Amino acid sequence: MSAIDYPLSKIKAIAFDVDGVLSPAVVPLDDNGIPRRMANLRDGYAMVLAIKAGLKLAIISGGQSDALYNRFKIIGLDDIFLGTLDKLPVLQQWMADNGLQPGEVAFVGDDSPDVVPMLAVGLPVTPSDGSTDTKSVARYVTSATGGYGVARELIEEILRDRGSWPGSSVSLGQ
Amino acid sequence: MSAIDYPLSKIKAIAFDVDGVLSPAVVPLDDNGIPRRMANLRDGYAMVLAIKAGLKLAIISGGQSDALYNRFKIIGLDDIFLGTLDKLPVLQQWMADNGLQPGEVAFVGDDSPDVVPMLAVGLPVTPSDGSTDTKSVARYVTSATGGYGVARELIEEILRDRGSWPGSSVSLGQ
Amino acid sequence: MSAIDYPLSKIKAIAFDVDGVLSPAVVPLDDNGIPRRMANLRDGYAMVLAIKAGLKLAIISGGQSDALYNRFKIIGLDDIFLGTLDKLPVLQQWMADNGLQPGEVAFVGDDSPDVVPMLAVGLPVTPSDGSTDTKSVARYVTSATGGYGVARELIEEILRDRGSWPGSSVSLGQ
Amino acid sequence: MSAIDYPLSKIKAIAFDVDGVLSPAVVPLDDNGIPRRMANLRDGYAMVLAIKAGLKLAIISGGQSDALYNRFKIIGLDDIFLGTLDKLPVLQQWMADNGLQPGEVAFVGDDSPDVVPMLAVGLPVTPSDGSTDTKSVARYVTSATGGYGVARELIEEILRDRGSWPGSSVSLGQ
Repeated sequence: MSAIDYPLSKIKAIAFDVDGVLSPAVVPLDDNGIPRRMANLRDGYAMVLAIKAGLKLAIISGGQSDALYNRFKIIGLDDIFLGTLDKLPVLQQWMADNGLQPGEVAFVGDDSPDVVPMLAVGLPVTPSDGSTDTKSVARYVTSATGGYGVARELIEEILRDRGSWPGSSVSLGQ
Repeated sequence: MSAIDYPLSKIKAIAFDVDGVLSPAVVPLDDNGIPRRMANLRDGYAMVLAIKAGLKLAIISGGQSDALYNRFKIIGLDDIFLGTLDKLPVLQQWMADNGLQPGEVAFVGDDSPDVVPMLAVGLPVTPSDGSTDTKSVARYVTSATGGYGVARELIEEILRDRGSWPGSSVSLGQ
Repeated sequence: MSAIDYPLSKIKAIAFDVDGVLSPAVVPLDDNGIPRRMANLRDGYAMVLAIKAGLKLAIISGGQSDALYNRFKIIGLDDIFLGTLDKLPVLQQWMADNGLQPGEVAFVGDDSPDVVPMLAVGLPVTPSDGSTDTKSVARYVTSATGGYGVARELIEEILRDRGSWPGSSVSLGQ
Repeated sequence: MSAIDYPLSKIKAIAFDVDGVLSPAVVPLDDNGIPRRMANLRDGYAMVLAIKAGLKLAIISGGQSDALYNRFKIIGLDDIFLGTLDKLPVLQQWMADNGLQPGEVAFVGDDSPDVVPMLAVGLPVTPSDGSTDTKSVARYVTSATGGYGVARELIEEILRDRGSWPGSSVSLGQ
């Protein structure tokens, strides 16, 4: 049984906000005062496995930096929408392009601009330190705080549910 | 009801110290031994909303760096007083220039040099890990520690009080 | 008595994963989106002492960076296997080259790719925030979380057991 | 009454280790694998006040970097002994040069190489996450962990004891 009260086998795709979700909300500034994002390497490992298992992943973030773009490219994502101030139309276009129904999609966000896209999918998710607003619309609140394993927790639940998490079957060969 | 025991509708302006308030007290040193500040991106989001809602914001800090200046410029602040060793006259000049009465101003500080400016405003605020001295004069101690959401907590309370926090009204459009 | 339920006097060698073990799982990205690892300086001090005491140390990590290589070279390691996607054959070759029996080796890992090499040694170890999978096969779970003293805790236990931790004998001359 | 069981009015000088004391034990690596130290800005503020109040401060660390040297120079320290592998003779020479008796000196260290210099002074201090060895010889264990306010806590106690902490007297004038 999963900790997530949702039929996880239906999920075909996950879209992630970045700041406060894949990167902590508190990050160093570079010499120009631009936030230098951080990454959770276990999130990255889980995202690689998710793509291998056939899940569609997207990044939909108001933030923008070459570092973020390169990080997600290296992990293997193709759908990286940075500098997105209005997230709903981007999410809806991405869902249309990939033939995804709302019930097949999870959206993970931590703050007010994420509330509307969260309401547009079947499985809205927020970190344990998400804002009051995203918590009020989330169907699942991760035990991880933003940046510290949110994607890992969600992806591991989904892949275990379908038996494609490494080590959940007999074969441990990797 | 707000958690802050003060008539928040009176507040027209907020001045912030940086180190230990908007940036954590513990930060990396750059190659020259200069502290490289950090930023809380949810603080930044709240500051953008505060400016939009008509609040006047200022930075009054003993610290000084191009990174800090640029960070606050990008957020939309005009009144950025860095390298300020004696904060009271700078605060008072800023209040005079903007026609602000003490009861209309909040000052957020975390350490001894902030005690005097805190005493000069109606709503002195300090983080939960603020110094003994600033705690003794604060009217509100945030639940957030320095750098980890102090500005967000204060601004969200003020904007919710006046109904201008996104999502607190019917319209969730952005 | 050691906290580790294993005859520590048998241990002649330790192999470490890096991300989530010697470096925390959450790290800053550099300008190119490459994770910039962190180091625990007390881990480093303990590794220097371990080498002095005659223990064989190796790094077997999927991660790869000049910074990591240089860090471990400076500490005094010779066997640094970075960019290792399949860890078992590298571990087995290293054990063969050094004439090590499984019961003489500890392997410290935090995530699914570490499960198989952990099963190949006598003393598999994982951090307190290791994955469900590595915890299920670990013989010892450190009290430290990944990056925050895992190597220190393990090495200090092993060296105290054989009386070669500084200060555990009469001589404090260091 | 101070939390420190020692006649604080006797203390004329404090020597600090750096890694695990003034900087956290876990820090980022630079591109060459060299640890990039961090600083607690409230520690720095307290050190400035200590020097103003006539306390003699020294840094005695095995670590070495231009960043550290510059950081402490900017704060106002003259006695900065970096790259010191054997700390006792350096400490003793510094005490002799400044006419300091053991009972007038505090030494703050966190790990085994600090045990001997800690035994050579009247007030040996270690952080709450100091090693087993330094805790066993410390007269005072700070409530702060290494890097997160150790110097601040010690200096504030000493300066309050002599009434020279700002705000502890009537004058709050910065």
